[in-house]
Amino acid sequence: MKKGCPYGTHRVIEPKGVLPQPALKIDNNMEIYDNEILIDVHTLNIDSASFTQIKQEAGDNEEKIKEIMMNIVNTRGKHQNPVTGSGGMLIGNVEKIGNSLEGKTNLKVGDKIATLVSLSLTPLRIDEILQMRKNIDQVDIKGKAILFESGIYSIIPKDLPENLALSVLDVAGAPAQTAKLVQPGHKVVVIGGGGKSGMLCLYEAKKRAGITGQVICIGPKEKSIELPRKLNLADAYITADATNAVEVMEKVKEATNGEMADIVINCVNVANTEMASILAAKNDGLIYFFSMATSFTKAALGAEGVGRDNTMIIGNGYTRGHAEIALQIMRESEALRKVYEELYA
Amino acid sequence: MKKGCPYGTHRVIEPKGVLPQPALKIDNNMEIYDNEILIDVHTLNIDSASFTQIKQEAGDNEEKIKEIMMNIVNTRGKHQNPVTGSGGMLIGNVEKIGNSLEGKTNLKVGDKIATLVSLSLTPLRIDEILQMRKNIDQVDIKGKAILFESGIYSIIPKDLPENLALSVLDVAGAPAQTAKLVQPGHKVVVIGGGGKSGMLCLYEAKKRAGITGQVICIGPKEKSIELPRKLNLADAYITADATNAVEVMEKVKEATNGEMADIVINCVNVANTEMASILAAKNDGLIYFFSMATSFTKAALGAEGVGRDNTMIIGNGYTRGHAEIALQIMRESEALRKVYEELYA
Ligand SMILES: NC(=O)c1ccc[n+]([C@@H]2O[C@H](COP(=O)([O-])OP(=O)(O)OC[C@H]3O[C@@H](n4cnc5c(N)ncnc54)[C@H](OP(=O)(O)O)[C@@H]3O)[C@@H](O)[C@H]2O)c1
Ligand SMILES: NC(=O)c1ccc[n+]([C@@H]2O[C@H](COP(=O)([O-])OP(=O)(O)OC[C@H]3O[C@@H](n4cnc5c(N)ncnc54)[C@H](OP(=O)(O)O)[C@@H]3O)[C@@H](O)[C@H]2O)c1
Repeated sequence: MKKGCPYGTHRVIEPKGVLPQPALKIDNNMEIYDNEILIDVHTLNIDSASFTQIKQEAGDNEEKIKEIMMNIVNTRGKHQNPVTGSGGMLIGNVEKIGNSLEGKTNLKVGDKIATLVSLSLTPLRIDEILQMRKNIDQVDIKGKAILFESGIYSIIPKDLPENLALSVLDVAGAPAQTAKLVQPGHKVVVIGGGGKSGMLCLYEAKKRAGITGQVICIGPKEKSIELPRKLNLADAYITADATNAVEVMEKVKEATNGEMADIVINCVNVANTEMASILAAKNDGLIYFFSMATSFTKAALGAEGVGRDNTMIIGNGYTRGHAEIALQIMRESEALRKVYEELYA
Repeated sequence: MKKGCPYGTHRVIEPKGVLPQPALKIDNNMEIYDNEILIDVHTLNIDSASFTQIKQEAGDNEEKIKEIMMNIVNTRGKHQNPVTGSGGMLIGNVEKIGNSLEGKTNLKVGDKIATLVSLSLTPLRIDEILQMRKNIDQVDIKGKAILFESGIYSIIPKDLPENLALSVLDVAGAPAQTAKLVQPGHKVVVIGGGGKSGMLCLYEAKKRAGITGQVICIGPKEKSIELPRKLNLADAYITADATNAVEVMEKVKEATNGEMADIVINCVNVANTEMASILAAKNDGLIYFFSMATSFTKAALGAEGVGRDNTMIIGNGYTRGHAEIALQIMRESEALRKVYEELYA
């Protein structure tokens, strides 16, 4: 077997020198290098922004969608939407493991896994598109994919519905980081606490902050925080628009008796919520931006602009053990699992 | 006098509800509110990423640069580059102090100060652009500016040349954060180590990492790292283009005997250097992005894409004591001060 780079640069065709994700074209020949894993793919979970664009371009015609998808993979060697730049994830069975990974990986041939790295950097070959569940962005295929040595994955648990597992794994980084950051006694604000990642963060925050801490859920309207309230995931609930920094600050001040938050977790899906996150925190509080709509400069200059010594963390989608931590929530909380099954499975 | 909000929201024209920094347009009328300070401005120190962009757009033509700058201020009421989102800082004399600040501020009319909040949120009026020092991003003007109640500033020290103080204060957050993050024994990489913020970071890193640590300076070409080398600011020097992640990774690997960096400090002024920063760090290393050209999504998805559990910090321009820490370097190191005087004063 040929020797590969852990990051898959050996597969980059164009332009040279970059990594597989920013590359325009990568090699999707399915003869594996010594540090690669071959996957027999069953299902692609196309990124929602990407699939929406494809459906629009295809006028919602299924044959046309198939054509566009095949064309993307034939052109790029990976399912990276040229308009949105995004990918998605996949589910499949391990078919072959490179020599040099023996003793290094805990995977076995036959294991059913979900890849936790984006399809936008994963070598993929589609032989046939079998079936499509357009409403949940899922496409069953006959095909193969490659996982690089540095690529992360999760073995699909046998005790959870596959679609539930996929949904939870999509946002696994958020609750796992929450678990690492929140200490007993902390006051924690989760902005967008009623969303998919938000409720998992509330759950972990409450567990870690404990009886001496305080967990506060913020959503834009009463309906947005209905589920966390029903599930008793927080100690206090606030309806406020996080694009209105001053409103959020005032309400958090009231809820915390003027103390403000030690940790703010931003799980919204809209832009311009950096300042609300900063002003909800104590002067030296920590802000964890999970939202992909976060602007680096707005956060950096915003904190400086109000003279705040906050630590602001970029929400890395990965942290060690994130899949296990997120899936475990579904086992621990029957109530939360039921809600997620209804919403996402 | 009219009553103002400590964060300056009373000056926001569009969109309503946001703070001055994210606002598209703020009111730069120079009649002050009761909690504002009016400054007679002498010099603007344009953020490096912003000025680089403006010079490019202007084809390096001075008249065209002036036109772009005037246009920015006329459109936004502040000097916020619409492309980079960033600002800079200014030097001027206190001209007037709002009623309600009496007894609350230690400033007096006539004091010469540098504002330490970004120009991207500072109401500014430019009456005339007098002179330009293009190579050090400084522009002398006739004009006025407003400092909000929450705005931070530094009184210009009498023992240092004014332009030197201004240059150092502009990037004060970087060495101050370096001082807080670097521990004895750490391997530290400073990307863009030959720049204004870079050399200060190298100095602090070396002081903190100590004899058991290792400080590595990276610049794009031999000339870029000539000064740090001459001043002996680092333990190792690498010429590499930080937009080429693999090249940087290989060279850092070699310099650290395969260990990689505990802390990577990104001080470049160009885009697409997130992956190099991530790959230069250990798997659980910390990356401090001071560069305003950092993309949040490229950092977040980039780390996930290679399965890295890095902590990635958004370079907050402010941290407690940052002005004092940065200016102190100029007093401690005669060699560095001489170089900064030659370059920036
Ligand atoms: N860093 C990573 O690796 C990573 C990975 C996956 C996802 N993400 C990002 O994480 C974010 C959240 O994802 P998700 O799946 O949890 O989204 P989601 O389920 O759509 O949740 C978003 C939440 O934000 C709330 N919200 C919307 N506008 C708001 C406002 N103005 N003020 C306060 N709350 C507001 C929503 O309330 P309503 O429902 O009532 O509008 C909802 O509860 C997204 O930005 C996504 O891109 C990041
Ligand atoms: N977070 C904050 O609050 C804050 C405040 C102020 C400034 N900043 C940001 O900090 C950054 C640095 O500012 P500065 O004043 O130190 O800038 P600077 O003096 O221009 O330094 C930039 C350095 O980066 C080097 N560089 C350029 N391209 C490179 C590449 N491809 N690979 C490796 N190195 C490269 C430059 O080398 P050459 O000179 O040879 O090109 C130079 O040494 C800017 O992005 C600025 O916007 C942030």
